[in-house]
Order: sequence, then C-alpha cells, then structure tokens
Amino acid sequence: MRLETINLTDIKIEDRFWSKHIHLVKDVILPYQWDIMNDKVPGAESSRCLENFKIAAGRRQGEFYGAVFQDTDIAKWMEAVGYSLSSGRNQELEALADGVVDLLAEAQQPDGYMDTYFIIREPDKKWKDLCEGHELYTAGHMMEAAVAYYNATGKRKFLDCVLKLGDLICETFGPGEGQNHGYPGHQEVEIGLIKLYEATGNRKYLDMAKYFLDIRGLGENYFLKEQKSPDYLHIFPEFEDYDPRYSQSHKPVREQDTAEGHAVRAVYMYCAMADVASAYGDEAMLEACRRLWENITEKRMYITGGIGSSGILERFTTDYDLPNDYNYSETCASIGMALFSLRMANITRESKYADVVELELYNNILAGVALDGKRFFYVNPLEVIPGNCIPRTSREHVKEQRQKWFGVACCPPNIARTLASLGQYIYGTDKDQIYMHLFISGQTCFRVGNSTVSLEVESELPWRGEVSTSLTGVPESGICINFRIPAYARDYTICSGGRQIPYENCRGYASVRVTEDTKLQIRFSIEPVFVRADVKVSSDVGKVAVMRGPLVYCLEEKDNGNNLAALFADTEKGLWEEPSEEFGGIIAVRFQGKKMVNSSRHLYETYEPQYETREIRAIPYAYWNNRGVGEMAVWVKAIIK
Amino acid sequence: MRLETINLTDIKIEDRFWSKHIHLVKDVILPYQWDIMNDKVPGAESSRCLENFKIAAGRRQGEFYGAVFQDTDIAKWMEAVGYSLSSGRNQELEALADGVVDLLAEAQQPDGYMDTYFIIREPDKKWKDLCEGHELYTAGHMMEAAVAYYNATGKRKFLDCVLKLGDLICETFGPGEGQNHGYPGHQEVEIGLIKLYEATGNRKYLDMAKYFLDIRGLGENYFLKEQKSPDYLHIFPEFEDYDPRYSQSHKPVREQDTAEGHAVRAVYMYCAMADVASAYGDEAMLEACRRLWENITEKRMYITGGIGSSGILERFTTDYDLPNDYNYSETCASIGMALFSLRMANITRESKYADVVELELYNNILAGVALDGKRFFYVNPLEVIPGNCIPRTSREHVKEQRQKWFGVACCPPNIARTLASLGQYIYGTDKDQIYMHLFISGQTCFRVGNSTVSLEVESELPWRGEVSTSLTGVPESGICINFRIPAYARDYTICSGGRQIPYENCRGYASVRVTEDTKLQIRFSIEPVFVRADVKVSSDVGKVAVMRGPLVYCLEEKDNGNNLAALFADTEKGLWEEPSEEFGGIIAVRFQGKKMVNSSRHLYETYEPQYETREIRAIPYAYWNNRGVGEMAVWVKAIIK
Repeated sequence: MRLETINLTDIKIEDRFWSKHIHLVKDVILPYQWDIMNDKVPGAESSRCLENFKIAAGRRQGEFYGAVFQDTDIAKWMEAVGYSLSSGRNQELEALADGVVDLLAEAQQPDGYMDTYFIIREPDKKWKDLCEGHELYTAGHMMEAAVAYYNATGKRKFLDCVLKLGDLICETFGPGEGQNHGYPGHQEVEIGLIKLYEATGNRKYLDMAKYFLDIRGLGENYFLKEQKSPDYLHIFPEFEDYDPRYSQSHKPVREQDTAEGHAVRAVYMYCAMADVASAYGDEAMLEACRRLWENITEKRMYITGGIGSSGILERFTTDYDLPNDYNYSETCASIGMALFSLRMANITRESKYADVVELELYNNILAGVALDGKRFFYVNPLEVIPGNCIPRTSREHVKEQRQKWFGVACCPPNIARTLASLGQYIYGTDKDQIYMHLFISGQTCFRVGNSTVSLEVESELPWRGEVSTSLTGVPESGICINFRIPAYARDYTICSGGRQIPYENCRGYASVRVTEDTKLQIRFSIEPVFVRADVKVSSDVGKVAVMRGPLVYCLEEKDNGNNLAALFADTEKGLWEEPSEEFGGIIAVRFQGKKMVNSSRHLYETYEPQYETREIRAIPYAYWNNRGVGEMAVWVKAIIK
Repeated sequence: MRLETINLTDIKIEDRFWSKHIHLVKDVILPYQWDIMNDKVPGAESSRCLENFKIAAGRRQGEFYGAVFQDTDIAKWMEAVGYSLSSGRNQELEALADGVVDLLAEAQQPDGYMDTYFIIREPDKKWKDLCEGHELYTAGHMMEAAVAYYNATGKRKFLDCVLKLGDLICETFGPGEGQNHGYPGHQEVEIGLIKLYEATGNRKYLDMAKYFLDIRGLGENYFLKEQKSPDYLHIFPEFEDYDPRYSQSHKPVREQDTAEGHAVRAVYMYCAMADVASAYGDEAMLEACRRLWENITEKRMYITGGIGSSGILERFTTDYDLPNDYNYSETCASIGMALFSLRMANITRESKYADVVELELYNNILAGVALDGKRFFYVNPLEVIPGNCIPRTSREHVKEQRQKWFGVACCPPNIARTLASLGQYIYGTDKDQIYMHLFISGQTCFRVGNSTVSLEVESELPWRGEVSTSLTGVPESGICINFRIPAYARDYTICSGGRQIPYENCRGYASVRVTEDTKLQIRFSIEPVFVRADVKVSSDVGKVAVMRGPLVYCLEEKDNGNNLAALFADTEKGLWEEPSEEFGGIIAVRFQGKKMVNSSRHLYETYEPQYETREIRAIPYAYWNNRGVGEMAVWVKAIIK
C-alpha cells in the first residue's frame, strides 16, 4: 500500500533552516513573479504571460509573446499560491489569484481548450504539434495549479475549468476511431490528470494518464510521423532530425532501463509512471521505475542531485559522464527528481528514496534561488570560473550568477511551488503508520481510525542530528512511527524520557510502536566528510567533495582566493566545523590543503611546481553566489601520497 | 628584411619521418579526395563539389549542393596538386588538374566572377552577403590554388582565370564612390591577393589586401549594417545576433591584442597582416601580429598547438580557458597558425616562431590525418572517452575516430595542401643568409649572388637530435647558415670534421659563417620530459604531459586500459624510451605511475581509494586513433607528495 500524503493544510512548518526560504515565497517570490509576469521588473526578460491571456480572452488586442509554453508561468505561480495559502489564507494574494482565475476562465474556449499560444497564434494547429507544441504540458501544469488552489481554498472555479480541459483531453485522445493517438511531447499532463483523479475520484483521468504512458514508444514513433505531416509546425530549430530518446518515446516505458533524453521530461514521466504503477498495482511499471531511479542515482546524477549533464538539449548522456563545468543540472529536473523519489519513497517505504528527496531539496533545488528570493539559477554547475561562462561558447548556458528571470522561465516558479509545498515531502501515512521522511520542524496531524494524532517536531537539521518529536492523541490501539535513518547518520539512537529505546530498522526507517502520548528524541551524529565519486567518473577521480549531513559543500573564491583548481585537499588531516552567522547562520567546514602556485614563465614548461599551505573553507553549495560573483567548485583535488 | 621562401620546385624532401606522410598526398589523399569530390566513395558525406561547377558551366542541369563555400574543396585540392607537382611532375594527375582548370574556366562568368553557390542559386545576391556568403574566402583559395599550380607547371590558364577574378574584386571593392566598402566575412582573400602580387608583381593586388585589412573593424560594423538590408540572405542560423568579434571586425586590426572569435578566420587574417606589415614596413601592424601571437601561444593555445577552445562557433574564448574534452582545435586553425608563425619567423628571424611552426606540424596538424591517409579529424580533442562523444550533446562536435569526409570539408584538403607544401616551412633565405627553421631531410638549392649553393640535409628528427648538412657551391664571399635552436634542445653543438665549432646565438638560431663547401653536424639531446601547464590553466593544473622533442605524447586505452583519468604519473621516477615498430617506427615513452581502482559500492561514498602500480605508455599524439577506437588523454594526473 502506498503511503498517503498529508494535506498541506494540516502541516505547519516552523523550521530554523527552511522557514526563511519558505517565507520568501509569500513575501518576495510570489509578489516578484507577479510583477515579472506583468512586466513590471526593469532589467528582467519580458514575460507578458498575463498579457497573452488577456489577448486570448479578448480583453486586449495583440500578438502572442514568449515561449510556446509561456502559460505555465502563471500555472506554476497559481500552484505556488495554492500551496502557500494552505499554510495560511491571505486576502490580498487570494484576491489576485481569483482575478487570475477569472482571466483564465475567460480565455478558456467553450470546448474547454486553454492554451494562449494556439488560441492566439495557431488556432488551426491545436493538438497537431504534440512534439513541440507543449499544449498537454501546459494543461498538466494548469491541472496541478487548480488542484492546489482548490485544496487550499475550497474554491471550485479554477478546478472546474481544468476539469473541462481534462474532459476535452479525454475526448480528444485515446485509442478510439477519430481520436488522436498521440501523446505529450513534454510529459506533465499525466501528473496533472492523476491529480484531477485524486481531487475528484473520477477514474477516467487516471485512465487517461495511464493511456498516455501505455502508448508512449509503442510502434512507429508518433512524433516522427507527426513531423512528416504537411500541417506540422516547426517551433524549435533543435527539433529537426528528432531523436525519440529526447522525449523518452524511443521504446515502451516499461522496457526503459536507462534515463535518456531531456531530463525534465524524463523525471516528470517517471513520476506519473510511479503513480500509475501504484494505482494499478502494475509491477512491470514499478520495476521500470526502480531501474530508472537506480540508473540515475548510481550512474547519472551529480553529487548535488543535479541531473542532465549535457548543456545541449538539457539531457542525460551516458553512465558516469558528469562534467562539472558545462553540465546542465536544471533546477526543474531536480524538482522532478525529488517528486519522483518522493513517490518511490511512499510506494516502497525504502529510505534510499527519501535520502534523494532530501539531497535534492537541500542542494540542487535550493541553489536555484538566491537568499533574497529575487534571482534564480536555471543551470547548476559544480564548477564555475566566471570569466569563462561567456555567450556563444560551449559554456554559454552556464551563468556565473543567478538571473532575474529567463526567456524560458520554467525554473523560478517551479522553485516557488516546491518551497511552498515542502510539507508534502515530509510525511507519509498509512492507517496507524506514520513515516517521517524528512526532519523538518513543525506540527502536523493525521487520522488514525477515529483519532486525530498530533505530531510536533523540533529538528536541528541540517546542522545537528537532533530531532525531538511529541505525539499527542495517540489511540490505545497504538501507532507506529517510522523515522528515516539517513545514509549519512552515525550512531542513530532514539530516546524516550532520557532513555534509549529499541527500534526496528525497516528498509532504512527506525520503526517505533507507541500506545500513548510520547515524546521521542532521535539523535545521530552529523560530521563533515570527504566524499569521493566512483572512479569511473572521469571528471571527479582524484578529487573529493565535502558533505555534512544532507548538505553538499563548495569552495568559493571569496573564501579561498581565485584558481580553486590549484587547491589540493590534505584529506588525512581531517575537517573541522566553523559556525558562522553568514547566510542566516550556517556551519562552514574547513580543512587543510595546499595550493599550487605559479613558477612557470611560459604556458607550457618543464618545471617543479611550488606549493603553499592553505586552510580551505567550504560553505553549503545551496548558498553559493550569494556574496557576489566569483569562482566556485564542489570538487577539490586531493593529495595522493 | 623578410626572409624569402625557396621555391618548392627547388626543395626535395626525403625524410624518414615526413616522407611517408607526404607520399600519401600523391598516392592516396589526392586520388581519394578526387573520388570524394566526384561522389564515388561509399559511406562518405556527399560533396558534389565538381557537380556544382558543371552546373555553373552549363554542362549539366541541377541544383547547387553543399556548403556555401563548397568550391573551396576543389581549390584546396588544386593547390595541393600544385605543390605536389612541384616535387615531381605527374602526367596523370596533371591531366586531371587541367581538366579541372577547363571546368573552372567554363564556369567563370565573363566579368571574372566565379562562385558556384551564387552563380547557381543566388545570382542576384553577389557580394551582398559578405558576412556569410564566403565569396571572398572562396576567391582567396582559388588564388592560392592557381598560383601553386602555375608555380609548379608554368601553365597560365588557371592563373589567368583568378587574375580576372582578382581584377573584378579590385574593381568591386574599395573606398571609391560606387564601390563596395565591405570586407570579407571569412578572411582568406587577403592571402590569395598577396600571392597574386607575388606571382605577378602587380602591386594592386597587394594594395587590395591591405585595404581589406585597413577598413576591417573601422567605424560602424559592416556586417551588422549589411544584415539590416532587406536583401540580406541569412545562411547560417548561428549568425543571428552577430558578434563582430567572431570575424575579428570588432576593432581595427592594428588595435587588436587578444585573439578573438573564429580561430581559422583569425589566423588567416594574422597571416595577411604579417605579409602586409613586412611589405609596407608597417610597424603598428607588425606589433599587432606580435601581440596576437603572444596572446595565443602564452594564453590560448593547447600544448598540441590546437587553437579555438569552444566547440560552439569554433572560437577562441578567454585566457587560460583550455578544456581538454570539448574543445575544437580545428585542424585548419592549426594550419593557419603554422602559416602565421612561419611568416613571423621569416620576418623576425626569432626561433620561437619556428618552434610553433614545428609544434603545429608534428602535432595538431598531423593528427588531422590517419596513417593510411583516408580518414581525417576536424576537431582535435586532448582527451576522449569514446562513448561520451555522442550526437546532440555538448560533445557532439568531438569525434572518437577520424571521419571519411565532412559535410563542411575544409580540413581534409587543407591537410593535403599542407603536407604537399611542407618544403615552404623549412628554409628562409636572404642574400647570403640561409635559415633552417625545421630539421627535415632532403636537398635544396638557393642563389647567393651568382652562385647556386646546394644544401643536403640528413636529419634524425624527431627521434634524435642529429642533423648532418652538406653545403656545396659555397662562394668565396661565404654564406651564413643559421640553424634553429629548438627550445627543447639540450647540449646544442655544431661540429665540422669531427670538431665542435663555435656559433653565435642570434635570436635562437645558431649562426655559422662558411666560406667553402662544408659538412656540418648539429647535435642536441632530445629527452622525454614531463611538461606542466601554467597553473592558471584550470583544466591541466596538477597534471603533466609528456613531450619528447617537438612531439607531444598521449596515452591510449590500447596501451593503458580504460579509465585513463584514474592514472597518476609518478614524476619522480622519470621516463624511459621504448623504440617501437608501430606507426612505421616510433619511440614510445614509458613512465611509472599508479591507477586508482574502484572500492566504492555507490556513485558517491566516503572511502579510501585503492591504487595499483602501473607502467604507463605514451605514444605520439599525432598517431592516436590509428589502432582502433579507445580512450585517449594527453594530460595525466601527477602524484602530489
């Protein structure tokens, strides 16, 4: 049985680490993105996202502007608003959102269709360009948004709109004669349809999602066929000479065993595959999910959780091919990987999946947003030399600093919705079982039979492995609470009333049965360590990275001077912690090393290098580039003796 | 006074190292490329180069096929034929070439215009797309070809054709009213025009070349202006949002001090700048040449001589930005760099320039062609993991093996013309002075006053630093012979009659005055050494490369197993030589080291790596990928103690 997610309205987060980021969503990111979408931020790339809807609704005259999936900016914003309102209603924000809903409803066509690109610019091409048109992708984000807004506010108007859109999709697509036998060029609608099913109980949406997965990659490739049609609209130049692996349509999804193609498409599909696998008890599908997850995490993922190692086509490449300075590691891809891993954690109850959820959230995802909430990374390199990231080169996609906005702006609102829905990642429940995947302070409650059990959590993560929990309302029949044992945790103990109590280790969760209101303390030591990659990772062999608990650390020029590549860690001398007030309070890590200094007169020369002893300082990767532009490196060379 | 180049007809090369490559030109490469250009090689990319001329000449009906500069394939082939015939006439080849000349002459238009792309496809756009149209580039190659063919055979027909073309260019372009004030989007015609001047003594061609250099980058950028014209024809998608640095038109050429933009364009321009600087005694121009050459060789060149470190736009990037696995290092760019360095050597008589000529020839250029003469590298990486060089990724331009031909096929015929004209790089003369830039066995003769001096050279380079020379016909007034002292040479001595004789070191040349027929032996020791890059080269810091004399070495999987990145050189234990019969006879180099072997179960883990002791073998970089596909690396990590 898959664990259920607790409603966000029943989860309150008050966490020393996360709250400052989450508050930014409401206080800064949502208002900022609202201004962006209304083109009120000077110096940021134009969005005109809402303008497009006004044109589609007939309120304004004009041309469509932006990417073919420009509508998803407002969808992800609305989804973030929904999640944000779950933890506390807000008149002002809700008024804005209700206005958006009215606009979207006005822009929606009588048959339920809603996609401003096609409404405004290509009304005759609807559903005829599944490969590049992104209509189903956009629809999926609208569905996710509407369900989030409905769950938070109980208001049905947006939900009703997207149900109508969902109905149109269910009529339009399918195996029947006269139906379109295609499937999305960018997966996402599957997730949206599943959420419509979860919100309404109407199984046709779930079946539709399953259908899209079932036919994907079967027989002649739909996109290659579609591209041959004289009607076909080429939107992206890079889609010529199309490789079906790009959209994971190269073979049936149950037969896929390596993560291929565009990373965001891939992980969004894997999310839906996991949902469908558990909803239908589809073992072959679940097995494919396990294989794909293993392939990513054991062969194709950066230590920071980044996925998609090619800057061209934002795609997976081959096993162990993980270059640090020209990778993509899109923020959205890590968000998708966290969502996929969360589903796998809830389905399998194995802690390794939640380990990756945590890794993604604390590293590649959080790195996507500046501490002030106003700038964003789309690409997340592990090594940057600012002057080298110049336009019209192999590193043009790598930015040396977070950007205000992007022409293709999928990442910023995706971060907003992720932070606003952080609660969904923390717990899973099943009858009298509660699983704590993440150690984040706050309160929640959940139903066990007729009782409502409350759980209060005080966590010192990620800085210290100390978590106090207080359960109240525990029924006499008892409940079973399962705390994740992170792979990095040492000396994991659980205490009650000052005394250590035994626990069972169930697939990486410490399982404790309680039959009365109880306070439990989980303790484990978190130490900074040098981590190495498998030696088959040619980019990292001979190097070490610093981790401490879930946090990956990095070196910045600000702390260590320039030419970080010339630093060598003396791994035998250990690491020490340095509490710091920077970044709202962190524990930095220091270690001994040396720096190779120049002693050559020419570019290439036979010479004995000189070294200086150095103390090297590392800070959490998520916080890099918050102190100005400079070099950054996650991996540092180690002295080999 | 600039040193003069000896006519190729007066140079005979009989060299243990080079002859096997040079013979390939006549025996394999020229016939093979002939078949390619006539589309007779199965599995190779289509060329249809000659077909285009037949259509332009009206012999056939059809459409233009190929790149806008497809004509240059036959031009470079003709140039190579010319050089090849210089060392020995060949009826069969000459008959083919004469046929080509007839065809070209037939395709040429009455006003002298000859460019099949515009004649066939865009007759109204002639000279209206200097940015992308490549007409002047193509014209330049035609001029070089015609001069080479004329110098070898004395036949004027081809030369007369291109003189007519040159006249048309001189009429069309210039500062006059009604003239086109543009300049080439891809430099090359400047070199061609200078060669027309050298062949005919007609200074207007030289002036035209100077004009193109003088106006480049002056005032409003010509290409940006041109692109705004409604007439403008966009050919290359990557030329949108054009950056004038790409074609070195961002500032006046005399003011340029860093090598920017497309590497081949850059170095072809620098060649013409050097020629013009010496022809006009233009000190500012020469100073710019010196600065640009220093910028490349001290900050932007690979150890192999490769230039252009970005796979995107084949361009220079920034100082010390020299990634090894996704660089470009186009074969043509190194050819241009050798030509530029040769000019600088002849102008300045400083040995450092000839050092780079030698480096380019023995490494990045020679690597461009397989030992069998039938496959070619366009891109020359310094590190390859074959499975990672896959299409549609950041490394799609890197090929794991030499290719039969290319859609854009500038490199293969460029290598052919370079090998066929190797003689031009060896000597420079000025009255009673002879300079020996390169140590290549063979015979030559040159005039000193009324005497003809013969020089016979027996060189053991690159394997041993032993060069015997025999001068006959030395006039009583004497001559001065200047042997280059390579930067890598140790214990450089010159002997005559078994006795060491003194020499003067003039800017890196050992200068000896002789007044009678003399045999001189130059000896220096060539030892394998570990070379390091400046520590500012982040890709190479902590690594070493093996060099021996002019040869850069590399590690291949064939000799060292896979995962070359896991090897560490023990530089304290030295290097030793291993004579081998492979590749027609080489000296391989071996050294001690260790290999990190896997001891992790997961992709990222805290573990103590294990090492195995290894003897590592290196072979000349130029010969890599002649024993099948496998990993290759020039730089190897060094153990740091």
